[in-house]
Amino acid sequence: MHAIVYQGPGGPRLEERPQPQLQQATDAIVRLLKTTICGTDLHILKGDVPTCEPGRVLGHEGVGIVESVGSGVSRFKPGDRVLISCITACGRCDYCKKGMYSHCADGGWILGHRIDGTQAEYVRIPHADGSLHALPPGIPDEAMVMLSDILPTGYECGVLNGQVSPGDVVAIIGAGPVGLAALLTAQFYAPAEIVVIDLDDHRLAVARQFGATRVLNSGRDNVAGELHSLTGGRGVDVAIEAVGVPATFSLCEQIIGAGGHIAVLGVHGVKVDLHLETLWSHNITLRTGLVDTFTTPQLLKMVQAGKLDPQQMITHRFAFAEALQAYEVFGQAADSQALKVILEM
Amino acid sequence: MHAIVYQGPGGPRLEERPQPQLQQATDAIVRLLKTTICGTDLHILKGDVPTCEPGRVLGHEGVGIVESVGSGVSRFKPGDRVLISCITACGRCDYCKKGMYSHCADGGWILGHRIDGTQAEYVRIPHADGSLHALPPGIPDEAMVMLSDILPTGYECGVLNGQVSPGDVVAIIGAGPVGLAALLTAQFYAPAEIVVIDLDDHRLAVARQFGATRVLNSGRDNVAGELHSLTGGRGVDVAIEAVGVPATFSLCEQIIGAGGHIAVLGVHGVKVDLHLETLWSHNITLRTGLVDTFTTPQLLKMVQAGKLDPQQMITHRFAFAEALQAYEVFGQAADSQALKVILEM
Repeated sequence: MHAIVYQGPGGPRLEERPQPQLQQATDAIVRLLKTTICGTDLHILKGDVPTCEPGRVLGHEGVGIVESVGSGVSRFKPGDRVLISCITACGRCDYCKKGMYSHCADGGWILGHRIDGTQAEYVRIPHADGSLHALPPGIPDEAMVMLSDILPTGYECGVLNGQVSPGDVVAIIGAGPVGLAALLTAQFYAPAEIVVIDLDDHRLAVARQFGATRVLNSGRDNVAGELHSLTGGRGVDVAIEAVGVPATFSLCEQIIGAGGHIAVLGVHGVKVDLHLETLWSHNITLRTGLVDTFTTPQLLKMVQAGKLDPQQMITHRFAFAEALQAYEVFGQAADSQALKVILEM
Repeated sequence: MHAIVYQGPGGPRLEERPQPQLQQATDAIVRLLKTTICGTDLHILKGDVPTCEPGRVLGHEGVGIVESVGSGVSRFKPGDRVLISCITACGRCDYCKKGMYSHCADGGWILGHRIDGTQAEYVRIPHADGSLHALPPGIPDEAMVMLSDILPTGYECGVLNGQVSPGDVVAIIGAGPVGLAALLTAQFYAPAEIVVIDLDDHRLAVARQFGATRVLNSGRDNVAGELHSLTGGRGVDVAIEAVGVPATFSLCEQIIGAGGHIAVLGVHGVKVDLHLETLWSHNITLRTGLVDTFTTPQLLKMVQAGKLDPQQMITHRFAFAEALQAYEVFGQAADSQALKVILEM
């Protein structure tokens, strides 16, 4: 089969690889129909994720057809159309028992990281019963691919960790895919204002289309001043940091109101300054987290109900044979205006 | 009347001051019976709290007898024995409506800070209905003084913000009065282990008496290593930072387990490093806050039920005329082994 393989820092290669086989009774083999590329894959290619070793098939998102299952798989059978979660969950360990699947003792984020992933014609899914979702009929496969990672991440790590509530003023810093996923799902909770902040006017225009009530260009606007005015000096109720650099975290600290929630969505590579000399008495809550994907069934229902349209995040489509070109387009998002790209098998 | 008055950075003075008068219909004048000195008073004397101006009567804790009330006070009358909360609450503003009394638009922590406080023979209490508590009979006044600030602070900002739960491993960094208040109240929630960490062996011995299951001397023990062993490498469920310096915050980051809660109790004077490069994927929650004192009625019930003994925190007692000596003893706690001192009118 063909697969996108990490070579160490630098570009990946499209290689011929042996088809994966069942290893455990709880495994399934899935034949991919569609997959995508994640910002995290770019982090791996930069060498930011040392636990991902050269030779690894990349990818942790996708939709496919079950090819075969081990004797311990009870919820799926060959021929089932399934969504692959970016998080593998045994369902039995202490972390799984409390819904923190991201830290599953025998899973978590392992696909395309510690084991071979979904940017291939076939993938082995451990703990298939806890890591796959049956797909409802009538929804396009490419829409479903957005539910492997990006939408639950924006929703759980941004909106739920930020405790977005009706009437809130919410600031989302960063209008990349994960920030936009937070923007789409924040609207479930009827905030009064969702202000999206970015440096890229095109992305801000997209944010407007996706439901932002205001947008600010942090290269041009006085973001802290504008939000100060908007909230009568109180600061925002929720700040969702969706970039992952010290400057955007610092902005969250400047704009957060007393009693507010900061949700860290960005993948951070270096430490940041936490200004406890002012925040100690500000009654703030700060949350970080890998996605647990416990909301995937809920998001599936929202898509079915027509209340969430994942397809609007997709800007580019490629045949799998063009995957390296897709990586280039996705990696140069400022030029290509790419949000999410679909790779079709 | 006599009062302890802030003179700007340096020692306070015991001065003769005019007795306070009712200013608003919602005010009460309270004649103090007992008061105490808080670590925050020492911060003021060091010049760390610029919003407290010279000439201010210090103190935000105490028990007394209502002397007079304005026409808008309905819950108290002259002669009532009352507990003075360190937090003044109008009960009507947006913050009060959601129980965040610490940030009351016309109150919050103002006593002994923005208005004259309780280290005096009489004090004016604004919004008396929301800022005083009737005292149950049969409990010593000095025990009740511990409910003005230190016990609700340890409980709300440490135990509740840290979400201490049955079976948890809890680390409390700092065995000063506020850390010990967290230790006493953490036991309401039946954690498996409460490990108290400090540099002072005497305070660690007190922590043992107060219910710590283990103690570690951070000047001698490898705290991170010991907690790593104790938790099978997972890290603690709750880390309560009760000192307020970068080193103790850093220790919390080192010992916190995935999914864990860091509660910041300490009053911080400088920024700290937040290691988001490791914590971004660690699913942690960090909370800061001034006490809201919404738990004061609950803590009063726990004292009445014999499940909380505040008096064990009191190590020294002084007549009010000896208040300056009390400040010295409290300020040199390492030598005096002082925890809380009582000033008696």
